[in-house]
Amino acid sequence: MDILKEKILQYGKVIDNRLVKVDSFLNHQLDIELFNEIGKEFKKRFREKNITKILTIEASGIGIACITAQYFHVPVVFAKKHNAGNLGKDIYQAEVYSFTKDVLYNVRVSKEYLSSEDKILIIDDFLANGQAVTGLINVAKQAKAEVVGVGIVIEKRFQKGREMIEDKNIKLESLAVIEKIRDGKIVFN
Amino acid sequence: MDILKEKILQYGKVIDNRLVKVDSFLNHQLDIELFNEIGKEFKKRFREKNITKILTIEASGIGIACITAQYFHVPVVFAKKHNAGNLGKDIYQAEVYSFTKDVLYNVRVSKEYLSSEDKILIIDDFLANGQAVTGLINVAKQAKAEVVGVGIVIEKRFQKGREMIEDKNIKLESLAVIEKIRDGKIVFN
Repeated sequence: MDILKEKILQYGKVIDNRLVKVDSFLNHQLDIELFNEIGKEFKKRFREKNITKILTIEASGIGIACITAQYFHVPVVFAKKHNAGNLGKDIYQAEVYSFTKDVLYNVRVSKEYLSSEDKILIIDDFLANGQAVTGLINVAKQAKAEVVGVGIVIEKRFQKGREMIEDKNIKLESLAVIEKIRDGKIVFN
Repeated sequence: MDILKEKILQYGKVIDNRLVKVDSFLNHQLDIELFNEIGKEFKKRFREKNITKILTIEASGIGIACITAQYFHVPVVFAKKHNAGNLGKDIYQAEVYSFTKDVLYNVRVSKEYLSSEDKILIIDDFLANGQAVTGLINVAKQAKAEVVGVGIVIEKRFQKGREMIEDKNIKLESLAVIEKIRDGKIVFN
């Protein structure tokens, strides 16, 4: 998706040849016109999947998921990482390890909002080692819902996320795939 | 806003005559068609304000802010409560006390994304004691930006939020105003 790659090259900040900071348009300040292009593109790529629900994770996934949901005419459910006390006890949950922050956390979804009838599209901003997406797939599985696709805005291909998802035979579409970062320069696939 | 009030009466769960849980459509599962009606209504109520940016707070404000931003054609900035380490040191921040959870936390926004040119609309899902909104107003003030309005989905009129905002001479619009809750029943204004 060219417009996205251009934004990343123009505004992304590379840190340690490993992280790409895209705060200015994707996950702190949010470029809603770009989000609409992202939503349309996800619709194009998952059109045939009869999606009934979009599942994402707080906080950076929410905006992208909401704008995308308009093209599928389905609700969004976001998994909680923080302050999930008021969810009650009827929840699905999975443990997620964050390599970036070296912490373990739980993703939690109320049992009321996922069902065995659901065909789920998981949406997230980044795919690196695939831990967060794996947690969401796990949560969906507990609900006996079917995950029919994973849509990612920026994939870091040099980490293990893609393998983890493709091993589960789930269709994965990433709108910008970073093959490698060398000397602070981003190289797309 | 009638469609919103109907949703609250139909799906809201009253807890202790004080809290209203609207997980099923507003802040865990998200009803995007309703969000679009909310966005249109905010546009109607703040049309004359020449908004340049929408400011909200993670996590529940993000979806509403993003859908609403489409009607104003402006970007969204969301203040971070958690994991703000990667924001760097050039941030505006304000301390917020949560009555519900009896904890203090910081809201943080990178200095890059608020400026003295900005006319800001603050959006949030709930207004109770006004602490979160006051924190956002404080952050905007540090940037010398002008807060020209506060748009709230559900206001609990029996708490002090409205006074705190109106004391600052900022236009406040709430789409559903709960006057009181008695014996588990919600009474709208």
